[in-house]
Amino acid sequence: MPKPERQVLVCVNSRPPGNPKGSCAQSGSQTLFDRLKTLLTDRGLDRRVMLNRTYCLKHCSRGPVIAVQPDNVFYAGVEAADLDEICAEHLEGGKPVERLVMPDIPWE
Amino acid sequence: MPKPERQVLVCVNSRPPGNPKGSCAQSGSQTLFDRLKTLLTDRGLDRRVMLNRTYCLKHCSRGPVIAVQPDNVFYAGVEAADLDEICAEHLEGGKPVERLVMPDIPWE
Repeated sequence: MPKPERQVLVCVNSRPPGNPKGSCAQSGSQTLFDRLKTLLTDRGLDRRVMLNRTYCLKHCSRGPVIAVQPDNVFYAGVEAADLDEICAEHLEGGKPVERLVMPDIPWE
Repeated sequence: MPKPERQVLVCVNSRPPGNPKGSCAQSGSQTLFDRLKTLLTDRGLDRRVMLNRTYCLKHCSRGPVIAVQPDNVFYAGVEAADLDEICAEHLEGGKPVERLVMPDIPWE
């Protein structure tokens, strides 16, 4: 098996309750990861797309954050209901889901 | 600040001692991450290159594993002594360090 066609990075970084930065884990990113893992398998993408959990992806205020490489696309505020669209439009169709794309903001 | 010119992913996944898969953490990847963080700052790359720690990058037997996106390059068995070369040749020069590139092997 060659290297992945795409790599999907899901931030599951966790910070203690009350931390002013918050964290993607607090926003439910582990559930997103689990759901995406199932979707990739169901769609037969799991051998082409490598799914990885990460620590902080440096956009804490816009979480949950997901990055798709090698497209260098960062998604902000992803919800479970968005995952089918990300799979269909981006991972299968090759077109990023523009409405979810992270704006050009400073890294946190 | 726009999205990163490159994203460097360092697997720091940890497994308990005795686990047959081993882990990049056991191979010293957290030390690699710390060293790379310093190098990026020293070379003024820290605002162009986003450095992230990840969970498993699925090449456990070849750790420590580092991936560089959007080049879709995976490195195997990276040692601290390799990091200067990765910075100079790849992150500054744009040419992957071929001797460290992961072979086309199945994901683990």
